[in-house]
Amino acid sequence: MSSIYGENLKLSIFGQSHAPAVGMILDGIPAGLPVDMEALQEFMNRRAPGQNNWSTPRKEADKPEFLAGVLDGFTCGAPIAAMILNTNTRPGDYDNLKDCPRPGHADYTAQMKYGGFHDAAGGGHFSGRLTAPLCIAGGLCKQWLEEMGIRIGAHIRQIGDVQDAGFDAIDPELDQVGQIFPTLTTQAGEEMRAAIYHAKQDGDSVGGKIECAITGLPVGIGEPMFGGLENRLAQILFGIPAVKGLTFGDVQPTGSQNNDAFTMENGQVKTVTNHCGGILGGIANGMPVLFTVTVKPTPSIHKPQQTVNLKTGEITTLTVEGRHDPCIVPRAVPVVEAAAAIAIYDLILGSAHTGRR
Amino acid sequence: MSSIYGENLKLSIFGQSHAPAVGMILDGIPAGLPVDMEALQEFMNRRAPGQNNWSTPRKEADKPEFLAGVLDGFTCGAPIAAMILNTNTRPGDYDNLKDCPRPGHADYTAQMKYGGFHDAAGGGHFSGRLTAPLCIAGGLCKQWLEEMGIRIGAHIRQIGDVQDAGFDAIDPELDQVGQIFPTLTTQAGEEMRAAIYHAKQDGDSVGGKIECAITGLPVGIGEPMFGGLENRLAQILFGIPAVKGLTFGDVQPTGSQNNDAFTMENGQVKTVTNHCGGILGGIANGMPVLFTVTVKPTPSIHKPQQTVNLKTGEITTLTVEGRHDPCIVPRAVPVVEAAAAIAIYDLILGSAHTGRR
Amino acid sequence: MSSIYGENLKLSIFGQSHAPAVGMILDGIPAGLPVDMEALQEFMNRRAPGQNNWSTPRKEADKPEFLAGVLDGFTCGAPIAAMILNTNTRPGDYDNLKDCPRPGHADYTAQMKYGGFHDAAGGGHFSGRLTAPLCIAGGLCKQWLEEMGIRIGAHIRQIGDVQDAGFDAIDPELDQVGQIFPTLTTQAGEEMRAAIYHAKQDGDSVGGKIECAITGLPVGIGEPMFGGLENRLAQILFGIPAVKGLTFGDVQPTGSQNNDAFTMENGQVKTVTNHCGGILGGIANGMPVLFTVTVKPTPSIHKPQQTVNLKTGEITTLTVEGRHDPCIVPRAVPVVEAAAAIAIYDLILGSAHTGRR
Amino acid sequence: MSSIYGENLKLSIFGQSHAPAVGMILDGIPAGLPVDMEALQEFMNRRAPGQNNWSTPRKEADKPEFLAGVLDGFTCGAPIAAMILNTNTRPGDYDNLKDCPRPGHADYTAQMKYGGFHDAAGGGHFSGRLTAPLCIAGGLCKQWLEEMGIRIGAHIRQIGDVQDAGFDAIDPELDQVGQIFPTLTTQAGEEMRAAIYHAKQDGDSVGGKIECAITGLPVGIGEPMFGGLENRLAQILFGIPAVKGLTFGDVQPTGSQNNDAFTMENGQVKTVTNHCGGILGGIANGMPVLFTVTVKPTPSIHKPQQTVNLKTGEITTLTVEGRHDPCIVPRAVPVVEAAAAIAIYDLILGSAHTGRR
Repeated sequence: MSSIYGENLKLSIFGQSHAPAVGMILDGIPAGLPVDMEALQEFMNRRAPGQNNWSTPRKEADKPEFLAGVLDGFTCGAPIAAMILNTNTRPGDYDNLKDCPRPGHADYTAQMKYGGFHDAAGGGHFSGRLTAPLCIAGGLCKQWLEEMGIRIGAHIRQIGDVQDAGFDAIDPELDQVGQIFPTLTTQAGEEMRAAIYHAKQDGDSVGGKIECAITGLPVGIGEPMFGGLENRLAQILFGIPAVKGLTFGDVQPTGSQNNDAFTMENGQVKTVTNHCGGILGGIANGMPVLFTVTVKPTPSIHKPQQTVNLKTGEITTLTVEGRHDPCIVPRAVPVVEAAAAIAIYDLILGSAHTGRR
Repeated sequence: MSSIYGENLKLSIFGQSHAPAVGMILDGIPAGLPVDMEALQEFMNRRAPGQNNWSTPRKEADKPEFLAGVLDGFTCGAPIAAMILNTNTRPGDYDNLKDCPRPGHADYTAQMKYGGFHDAAGGGHFSGRLTAPLCIAGGLCKQWLEEMGIRIGAHIRQIGDVQDAGFDAIDPELDQVGQIFPTLTTQAGEEMRAAIYHAKQDGDSVGGKIECAITGLPVGIGEPMFGGLENRLAQILFGIPAVKGLTFGDVQPTGSQNNDAFTMENGQVKTVTNHCGGILGGIANGMPVLFTVTVKPTPSIHKPQQTVNLKTGEITTLTVEGRHDPCIVPRAVPVVEAAAAIAIYDLILGSAHTGRR
Repeated sequence: MSSIYGENLKLSIFGQSHAPAVGMILDGIPAGLPVDMEALQEFMNRRAPGQNNWSTPRKEADKPEFLAGVLDGFTCGAPIAAMILNTNTRPGDYDNLKDCPRPGHADYTAQMKYGGFHDAAGGGHFSGRLTAPLCIAGGLCKQWLEEMGIRIGAHIRQIGDVQDAGFDAIDPELDQVGQIFPTLTTQAGEEMRAAIYHAKQDGDSVGGKIECAITGLPVGIGEPMFGGLENRLAQILFGIPAVKGLTFGDVQPTGSQNNDAFTMENGQVKTVTNHCGGILGGIANGMPVLFTVTVKPTPSIHKPQQTVNLKTGEITTLTVEGRHDPCIVPRAVPVVEAAAAIAIYDLILGSAHTGRR
Repeated sequence: MSSIYGENLKLSIFGQSHAPAVGMILDGIPAGLPVDMEALQEFMNRRAPGQNNWSTPRKEADKPEFLAGVLDGFTCGAPIAAMILNTNTRPGDYDNLKDCPRPGHADYTAQMKYGGFHDAAGGGHFSGRLTAPLCIAGGLCKQWLEEMGIRIGAHIRQIGDVQDAGFDAIDPELDQVGQIFPTLTTQAGEEMRAAIYHAKQDGDSVGGKIECAITGLPVGIGEPMFGGLENRLAQILFGIPAVKGLTFGDVQPTGSQNNDAFTMENGQVKTVTNHCGGILGGIANGMPVLFTVTVKPTPSIHKPQQTVNLKTGEITTLTVEGRHDPCIVPRAVPVVEAAAAIAIYDLILGSAHTGRR
């Protein structure tokens, strides 16, 4: 495992779906940053399951318990540690997952890599539950970025074949994203929920796309060649289970179409269009940073699927029981924001010394 | 700058387009690995400019000079260092790039980040020329991977709106990729060259997509959550100038369509389809790894473009002179292979200790 | 803060003396390693306070609670997380430490670095209590090393001006170290306890030296120039509060005296002497690795000391109240072993790929 | 090998004694820093061999050739690369070193680790020659630190049993160190040269100690637990060949003697004594940082020594021919300064974000 991220801050995530707890340590954070626990809880709630009819009915309060690093409402310079106890664990028998891996899951690769010693229950360390500690860290970074005037917002861009409008690339409508169901247009939101409901009824699942915008990022953030905005965002975003694709901006077919002309606006250099997604040479150009991630459909479906019995070598049929999200895209929206916030805050911390002295 | 990559190996790249040299240090490589200099030169030649009518006429022999780390045809355990002298530098005056940044280039962001101290000539450290040392390192890693039975091959998947066939996801036709123009089908290749020629005539440029396949990768390679195959490949691939998108496998709309059923073939676990691109939970599942990168059109075009004069604050028109690739996609094909080879070899080196003991 | 250590494994430590908990995440450990919780507790007990009359009377059971990463007595490949709850916290008022820093402590530097936001209670993250999570990680690594035939043992080499015998450099007497008081000779142990008692009576404290030996380390471990045995051991050992010096082997004045002649013993290359402490060029030579750390006297003493009031700028006199170890050297012995075990196990994990292929 | 150092900057060193070149890449340095090439050459000359009768007669001009990263006398933000060509290589036959390892050298450990593929000529990557690129990087960092008012100076503290005076711990006499022979007192310098001459006549070598002082370091530099001043200095200092010990400050036997009382001086907090060597809790306290390294005697001596023939397994006698420094301590003085400068500048770069926001 390599569940550590960051160059300037260091985020270390632990936990399995049915271990005593999931949690994180966030090291390298300056002292004196305010921590708004209520705002953090609200952010956590956006990811938490069981709150509506399009996610898993398993109900868990994702209440982070802080073990260190925060004192009287401020970071104290010491590593920040927080955990969420797993209250309702080991409900069933997961041993057959070791024998008959679920298609689309990490059961088989984990079995082979860890030689049967891995924790298969509920997906173990591969569970979507591990995005909860990511949201603790990301929720904090998001607060600190907002203090600097940097905002991060995401919405569902697509579910199945239903598409939402895209963000305005020059002035993304972060405040227009729905609170209950995060789309820009309510029409798209309704159709998406219908698509999810349809998949659920069908014992199936659907995937989609999430678009994220970052505004207020100062020109100059990003460390090419391998620590540029794209590299650092990509490394953490592909750590979210089910993310399989990532695109920055909106590439056009020819250079004359794709190049964003420079202009002046109120004494500031801007670009007329923003096809580059706010990034030139891996470095923020002062325009909104825009990217879209592709989320695969939840592999847990109720339809019978073909798998093999690893012990006997026989081909067999598996039907996955239990509660599952027919679509994890809505719950993944705050996770994408969290991941982006961590990557951006990490780069901000390092930016003090890497540009002009 | 953060032009260092790798967890187990450490690749450090240096150079500017018009500096005395570009080059690299590759640290952490085992001793006793054979180095085939001829094969490396052949690989370098695939990236070198001036060899045909669809790339820049600037002719340079990309001949790496090894300074350390290789002895009598084998790695000696010490860091491997190699450079390529820049023979034909400082031909023109690049100072106006500091005043009037070229749209789509890193001129503006570099100017802002490095306060005018950066090397603007030919794009400096942001130049595509920096992919030459990437190819030295990647060409070596590719040789060592081939010794283990791991092959990496890429082809042009799309240029403008011309598409090549995709690799067979179960058995990618690596040997079918054209030597002169790397497509799977000659028909697509011809149409692509026509599209490039058309863009060149028009003073414009075109972008495209490159598909890459990795075969022979053992089950178990990859270190989730943040060191998985997707994370590590993404971090290096986005270090290639002009790469703006990355997709693994071929995500299908629903879970029942997207999940790859397991089967047995000659006593080995395989999947019937390969929509996941050979990766489950960030870990190789033994099927071919498949990904596609999106390459933006070369920002250097001959058409007049709007920019601003950073000194005067006036909006002005810029016409970029000089030799330029109307399409860098063909030359980027070996660079994608090189980047993938480095990421995979790095993960292979680390895999010795991260799975089952 | 930068409380993360390791190149192949990653150890992340958190906690403050009076935070809810201290703990650690240990990432990058192979699956399938046995975890002997009883042996770990015995190891922890060697560091725990309050067990005798030469350490602080504050009594705490250092019982690690495992949150993740261990399943049915074996590592499961996921990050290992464990914590120790701080049961008896915030007993007094530590605010005056922020105003009047204790000489020899980190109060002043923490105050300046963290701008008053740091947790001053009991030394916060600088407390010796943070060596408890270090011992969790080190105790585990020690078990895994022992399975490979690698043993680590330390003893008190000096307290005040009382010296114990040194280890035999060719065949260190690890089993001869006292269980109750870790010296090689009981005579030295008795005199040291007298010296500690004397310091305690005097309201003062004493420092000393700890010698550590590592046996069974295979030839070839260590990654020069900056990842050699000395570099890696030094980086972690200086992370133990109060360690101020470190010496490898036993340097002799002239080359002819200092060079260890090679010889053959039972078909194996050995050295006749071991002045180099088992390390040549940063790499293990197969002989016992030997080093000695210097531990400064506990800065907490009961004598009045001169300090300044940071608020008023006045010079004042401080008398430190409360319970304190008059000598932390005995309790630091297992901590030195733990730190060494972590460094060595980290190097072992990486050694699979860095030598001859 | 792991010849990379740094958390914020990244220094990558390459080369073997008889490879085409030795050199380095220094990544992560801000743009706009002045580079004084003459001052750098003067610094390099302090390390260069062949300049006097107490070092090896092999004469080489250690003239660094800059390949990238410096433009018009200033850093340009791109990685800095420089090399020194090895002009006078492969003079003799070093193959017998692979069979009959020299006592005290890395011949045996390299042979075992790299399986005979390593470059044995002149010690290969283990050669003292590799301190030349360390001095390029360190010489640059030293210049940049001086601009901030941070000075680093070292002197020979001991050779054989001849001792120089120690630095005044409150106000180190950096300007009093001799230019030709770096001691504080000329008397000690003369006696040391006599000791070196005596060893040379005897076909033997002598070791010694180097004391280093850093003045002007702001309060707050250092990142405990594992990135503190001691940890970071130790990791790089033990990368200098022949360094076997390191002590910070001047530890006293009891707490009441060792604790440095705080006082006020011209409105600034100071300590009355400086036994802690300017470091409390791993963090600079504003007083001079002081440390001493122990340098073992050069293992190359002209006296016959016992070794084994690794091919035949027979014990044999080896006489090392060729030119050798009878004492490398004088030439190691600037290397210690260079290493310290790199460590300190690295911490300075990171300190922007790790303290109080």
